Amino acid sequence: MAKRVLTPQSEDFPRWYQDVIAKAELADNGPVRGTMVIRPYGYAIWERMQADMDGRIKAAGARNAYFPLFIPESYLKREAEHVEGFSPELAVVTHAGGKELEEPVVVRPTSETVIGEYMAKWVQSYRDLPLLLNQWANVVRWELRPRLFLRTSEFLWQEGHTAHVSEEDARAYAERIHVDVYDAFMRELLAIPSVLGRKTAAERFAGATNTLALEAMMRDGKALQMGTSHELGQNFAKAFDIRYLSDEGVEEHAWTTSWGSSTRMVGGLIMTHGDDQGLRVPPRVAPVQVLVTVVKAGEGVLEAARALVADLVKLGVRAELDDRVDTPFGRRAVDAELKGIPLRVEVGPRDLAEGSVVLVRRFDGSKRSMPLGQVRDAVPSQLAEDQQALYDAALAFRESRTVAAASIDEAAEAARSGWATIPWSVLGVDGEGKLAASGITVRCLTMPDGSVPASEDADGVLAVVGRAY
Amino acid sequence: MAKRVLTPQSEDFPRWYQDVIAKAELADNGPVRGTMVIRPYGYAIWERMQADMDGRIKAAGARNAYFPLFIPESYLKREAEHVEGFSPELAVVTHAGGKELEEPVVVRPTSETVIGEYMAKWVQSYRDLPLLLNQWANVVRWELRPRLFLRTSEFLWQEGHTAHVSEEDARAYAERIHVDVYDAFMRELLAIPSVLGRKTAAERFAGATNTLALEAMMRDGKALQMGTSHELGQNFAKAFDIRYLSDEGVEEHAWTTSWGSSTRMVGGLIMTHGDDQGLRVPPRVAPVQVLVTVVKAGEGVLEAARALVADLVKLGVRAELDDRVDTPFGRRAVDAELKGIPLRVEVGPRDLAEGSVVLVRRFDGSKRSMPLGQVRDAVPSQLAEDQQALYDAALAFRESRTVAAASIDEAAEAARSGWATIPWSVLGVDGEGKLAASGITVRCLTMPDGSVPASEDADGVLAVVGRAY
Repeated sequence: MAKRVLTPQSEDFPRWYQDVIAKAELADNGPVRGTMVIRPYGYAIWERMQADMDGRIKAAGARNAYFPLFIPESYLKREAEHVEGFSPELAVVTHAGGKELEEPVVVRPTSETVIGEYMAKWVQSYRDLPLLLNQWANVVRWELRPRLFLRTSEFLWQEGHTAHVSEEDARAYAERIHVDVYDAFMRELLAIPSVLGRKTAAERFAGATNTLALEAMMRDGKALQMGTSHELGQNFAKAFDIRYLSDEGVEEHAWTTSWGSSTRMVGGLIMTHGDDQGLRVPPRVAPVQVLVTVVKAGEGVLEAARALVADLVKLGVRAELDDRVDTPFGRRAVDAELKGIPLRVEVGPRDLAEGSVVLVRRFDGSKRSMPLGQVRDAVPSQLAEDQQALYDAALAFRESRTVAAASIDEAAEAARSGWATIPWSVLGVDGEGKLAASGITVRCLTMPDGSVPASEDADGVLAVVGRAY
Repeated sequence: MAKRVLTPQSEDFPRWYQDVIAKAELADNGPVRGTMVIRPYGYAIWERMQADMDGRIKAAGARNAYFPLFIPESYLKREAEHVEGFSPELAVVTHAGGKELEEPVVVRPTSETVIGEYMAKWVQSYRDLPLLLNQWANVVRWELRPRLFLRTSEFLWQEGHTAHVSEEDARAYAERIHVDVYDAFMRELLAIPSVLGRKTAAERFAGATNTLALEAMMRDGKALQMGTSHELGQNFAKAFDIRYLSDEGVEEHAWTTSWGSSTRMVGGLIMTHGDDQGLRVPPRVAPVQVLVTVVKAGEGVLEAARALVADLVKLGVRAELDDRVDTPFGRRAVDAELKGIPLRVEVGPRDLAEGSVVLVRRFDGSKRSMPLGQVRDAVPSQLAEDQQALYDAALAFRESRTVAAASIDEAAEAARSGWATIPWSVLGVDGEGKLAASGITVRCLTMPDGSVPASEDADGVLAVVGRAY
């Protein structure tokens, strides 16, 4: 029987999560409470996510820029609703350059205010719009109950901020980010199925007129918000005085959006696909897709393994060699499982004498012997198949844990182990408040066909309710 | 005569520098003194630099990780020499989460100390070595006399930290970064020729046993240090207790290196290649390599320009269309010059009627008419030629401003407008001190053939002296 390397998910999910992060060497706690050290393996996953997301953001026309870490305290008082949202989470620098500062500066909890200031400076005429900016940066929100990747006092993210000539343009862009950037990224790269919808007024971002969100179900049945895209109406443009001269020569306030996604998605990746043996990293995002393992030394074994790695790399596969024959084979296999490497090819002297090797899928642990010469052909299609298999499994899991509820009590019952959908006309603001009292929230409002409702009042709107991270 | 768009370099170089950054839309001052907003065009240049450098660092075997922004104050007291180097530059967070912190935390001036702590945790045996880590991050060093890109209170950089089993290994790795990563990057991507050498004891990084540096000459004759690579001996490993069990079962302290390069290199790029018309961005790092400009509307003009952009993009050229015919052509040409776009193709109705367009090189402003059909072939080779031309021009400029001095007085005289080389045996520590009194420093010690001296005392060592940023 396999030795137990992790606390099983069914026994203690939060403990499993902690264990797998430590044992797969994804991250450590930082020295200051709530901070995180992202270790090379975890960072390699994040880098691949970032590169892919960045390409999609650029394809949507936004350009990257970089705004300062430090924000004058006064900026945060500009937008009353904004500061209410953030004040207790702020880290404040009071001393610098060996002296006390005249005005304390805040470590950015977002760059929204400073970006607003510069947008106001850069936007003069309708010709300057749309102004589509994105930033990759670290932000700080002091956390009292930190959890690696999910809630850390410092985290890495991208935040997009755009200004438009009209409400229609701003709305279309917020939706484009929600669907074409975020959802496509989650599906295609992370193999994570999301429910797309809009937030209720109670769950909306402070200052937004509409918040679009993607909600994914973790393997404990709880929801994780994977990214949000906000329409800010003219609220933000008025607070920061972002005005432009229209093509008719009239001075107008712009319509703005903002949208963000963060290292929290790494937590979502872990909790969507991981199992009791460790991570299962979808092939497209995996830093190592195939580990070619020398089972033990023997005639021609190392040479065959090396040649196979070289062949796979030539095909564009991220293949690595494991030739640490001083370390017991079993330990190396367990480590590869913990790290969720999609495929392993075991090259051993006995099999090799017969011209064959063993291909092991992390997805389901299945093994099959094949002629060495066939591995080159088998690997790319197996990677594509397993990318899809992870998506399908996550979707099937979510469906198995989602109940169509007809009453508030039924919905509350379903939220013990997963989600419920309930007509928003049945739940309503009162029902939302009632569920909130027992820690259950409306994750989003969605249409029966999975599309985003034009408004809360659209016919047939469903509330997706559950417990959330 | 061309309208003067910038203060000429010869009139006031610092003013020229400020002007070109503002007019080419590279960066703005941030709201907190000393901080910087990197605008989309400036950030696109930085992104390309970062991607290229990152590839070289990975090829040298280092892996990226991410360490926290906040460091306990106590960490910085660990290594006495280190804290002496940084203390007055630190920004300190005293309040967070709405309360005063029990122990203030420092915003990282480098991640050296925290990386040391975790290296000590991760390194157990010689099998864990070498441990080759790199981080891309923002760091903060409070600046009283900030200058965009060159000295800002917050800047972006990469810092590498590595641990090795022996002094030889550590030395070889520090040299590999210096030569194969940094120098190759400066030459091949930025078209910047550097003098490679080692620092004198007076100029060495606190705690280092040897500092390797690359020095480039700016167009005002001053030196800019473009990157440094340090051997730290066992000093750092002793301060942070980085020990390993050797293959003979003996506990030993590791030998470490550190190395860094930053957004300061953007300043170096501007000041190495820029002229009185603006930036000249080397083609390999240029976000836009070719701007296809519609001179004015006319039959088939826009279509021809669009098709040309599409053709060039297909060839892998970063081409963009400028079809803003509402803006005067002259203004658009000046803007493209300011931004240093390597090539422009002017497509106008009169030329096009004869089947031709005009190719304009930013390098020397030369223009040549050519059949539209030839542009596809001409562009890639012209880009390659201009990349080399910028390097050659920078090298010729440096050589024209470098004097081989035989005495300290001669060296001081040469440093009025450029650099001097002087035998280190003639200058010595005393001469170094004498020059320092008038703001002239030894930029590095180098060999007559351009290689790095094995020690200060090697035969024939030359000191390169000049004024520096």
